[in-house]
Amino acid sequence: MQSKLEENLQLLPADELARRVAKVTSHMRDLGMDAVLAGDNANLYYLTGRVFCGYVFVAADGRVMYFLRRPSELKGDNIHLIRKPEDMAPHIAGAIGGAPTVGLMMDDTPYSLIARLQKMLGDGASIANGSQVMRLARAVKTKLEIEMMAASGVRQASVYRELPRVYEPGMTDLEFQFEIERELRRAGCLGQFRLSGPELEIFMGNVLTGENADNPSPYDFAMGGAGMDPSLPVGADGTLIKPGKPVMVDMNGNFTGYMTDMTRTYVAGEAPEIAVRANRLSADICRAISEAARPGVECKALYELAVRMVEEAGMADYFMGHSYHAGFVGHGIGITVNEMPVLAPRSRDVLEAGNTYACEPKFVIPGVGAVGVENTYVVEAEGPAHCITVLDENIIPLL
Amino acid sequence: MQSKLEENLQLLPADELARRVAKVTSHMRDLGMDAVLAGDNANLYYLTGRVFCGYVFVAADGRVMYFLRRPSELKGDNIHLIRKPEDMAPHIAGAIGGAPTVGLMMDDTPYSLIARLQKMLGDGASIANGSQVMRLARAVKTKLEIEMMAASGVRQASVYRELPRVYEPGMTDLEFQFEIERELRRAGCLGQFRLSGPELEIFMGNVLTGENADNPSPYDFAMGGAGMDPSLPVGADGTLIKPGKPVMVDMNGNFTGYMTDMTRTYVAGEAPEIAVRANRLSADICRAISEAARPGVECKALYELAVRMVEEAGMADYFMGHSYHAGFVGHGIGITVNEMPVLAPRSRDVLEAGNTYACEPKFVIPGVGAVGVENTYVVEAEGPAHCITVLDENIIPLL
Repeated sequence: MQSKLEENLQLLPADELARRVAKVTSHMRDLGMDAVLAGDNANLYYLTGRVFCGYVFVAADGRVMYFLRRPSELKGDNIHLIRKPEDMAPHIAGAIGGAPTVGLMMDDTPYSLIARLQKMLGDGASIANGSQVMRLARAVKTKLEIEMMAASGVRQASVYRELPRVYEPGMTDLEFQFEIERELRRAGCLGQFRLSGPELEIFMGNVLTGENADNPSPYDFAMGGAGMDPSLPVGADGTLIKPGKPVMVDMNGNFTGYMTDMTRTYVAGEAPEIAVRANRLSADICRAISEAARPGVECKALYELAVRMVEEAGMADYFMGHSYHAGFVGHGIGITVNEMPVLAPRSRDVLEAGNTYACEPKFVIPGVGAVGVENTYVVEAEGPAHCITVLDENIIPLL
Repeated sequence: MQSKLEENLQLLPADELARRVAKVTSHMRDLGMDAVLAGDNANLYYLTGRVFCGYVFVAADGRVMYFLRRPSELKGDNIHLIRKPEDMAPHIAGAIGGAPTVGLMMDDTPYSLIARLQKMLGDGASIANGSQVMRLARAVKTKLEIEMMAASGVRQASVYRELPRVYEPGMTDLEFQFEIERELRRAGCLGQFRLSGPELEIFMGNVLTGENADNPSPYDFAMGGAGMDPSLPVGADGTLIKPGKPVMVDMNGNFTGYMTDMTRTYVAGEAPEIAVRANRLSADICRAISEAARPGVECKALYELAVRMVEEAGMADYFMGHSYHAGFVGHGIGITVNEMPVLAPRSRDVLEAGNTYACEPKFVIPGVGAVGVENTYVVEAEGPAHCITVLDENIIPLL
């Protein structure tokens, strides 16, 4: 047999790698670090275009080393095969002498592994939180990253467009969701929802209808839902989809390793007037935010813009939930579903060209259910942010 | 709207909670800790029967406190609502005075959060690795846990039995997998693959056929496969399922929050003689290990038993992979797919009644593909381990 993996470890074109490394080293220097060492899957993928078992080391002068544990067949320059983290020590010591400060992925890596890496680096080295370096670098996407996200957006929208064909009267939210999952998978969806932070969990997204929309969940997502089981209490719970009750579809958009996030609201029969109005307000907020989302704009101002529009429309009781209100209206997205910038009241993020964000002004209306639109946008150097999840934003008839 | 979550935080019956807490406190004392504080989803679920946003604190004397952030509607005794980890400090100080040693989930929780919890506990407290306490407690299942696993096993087996109905000639491994995913979901599978350890990722399991079976993956699973994308390089890769080529199905068995792990090998047409022989050997090893798997037996001896049987059959080149050989033959399973005990050459685990393990002696044969059986077993107080994934172990015809 011929292994597909007797290929380069580094899959990124040289100029693409150089662009990413330049961002990483710039933030590294700003934050007082001499190098970063990353072994978590999201950052390995960012720095090589693939997930492997091992580490990538980036020094402030731009040198990159790869420490490869598995699959050991991968080829390329600056690769050191390791069996355990301690095997990295001489190579790192050779690359950065003196008393370096090394950024480790403290927000993404368990305590015991960071402690082991610290020991490996030796008493002469200090460790710092490199997660913030990578978060800042990854927040500003390159052209290639934006293309990969846009490719996900096209495919996600094409599945969403076909959902009326998938729906059958008498379905529960779960039955509808299982068919949507299948359609997404058949269109090339990888399924995996990559998330940052230890306690976020979701399977392949959420379909919410009726009363279930108001069940709060433990997770920091925009919407809740009781879910199928107390071991994973979020999303669809078996509620029957009834005529005139909106169905909010917010499913996985990971087709390329780079995700889009997209929500559309569907209805069998006629949606109540308040649902139509709330959905239109959601689309209007998305558009208004995208027009305001220019480089230099504070993200908290975008959240405030959403709140003003909601208050003017008299819909504040329903905004981002009813029993429980989520405290944001949008979030950065890319390799994971929760990146920088965050569109929230106390966000300190300021937009830059190349930021990508999902905007999800949603409403939960008692007796009606969850309603709203979510799109993924790219912040441009000039002009409004550019939507990459293009599809009719009205409530879409299922029948 | 009526929230489903205006119910007890603690879903476990009082006697079940007492049994689990007794195990936790016993290991806590053995390992020199005065309390453990867990906030990761797997351990929250173990200690309450649900996932929520917050922490469970267990003191060595058996007192339990719940620190609840979200959903704040949950009711019950010994619940303290918190907004941030620091709000736990006075309650913990009140419960354990002096200079306590508190076990934190160092293998499961990011460094930065553990550092924050350590600060919250104050200078008077020491921290220790509580992950091992929880791992040891969770390795020995209660009757209720075994019932929940057995319920998953029944449903997983019932889906596997029907897979010939789902297969259509001309399918690729991915097309077959998507239909299996749908069948599993329709049978109540939660989808979520809960894993321990930071770098393991998988979507909903793997279907392997043909040459792809020998593609090594970065992940520490028994089998590899190139996968759909370098961002998630494991499993099916679009290989056409050809007549006479085995198809190994190893998909998600999480129906209850407690998983089973189960593999069967299928074939369209006639399987080559060597595949039949390897599959029979796999089933024989599963059975031999289950007969030997009694309380007090060393897990490394079970691994050695498998290796002896493989060597006697002249199949060592193919055992647990061909280009790359995985270094184990079985693993504990329950809330996550990788628990104690581990059936591996350097395992120090010794079996106890109530251990549950998946046994997966698999073979990758050049020119043929991946072949083998995997079952989940419960170690009994007397007699052989008890299989809870019961289905014909021969290669199953797809047509």
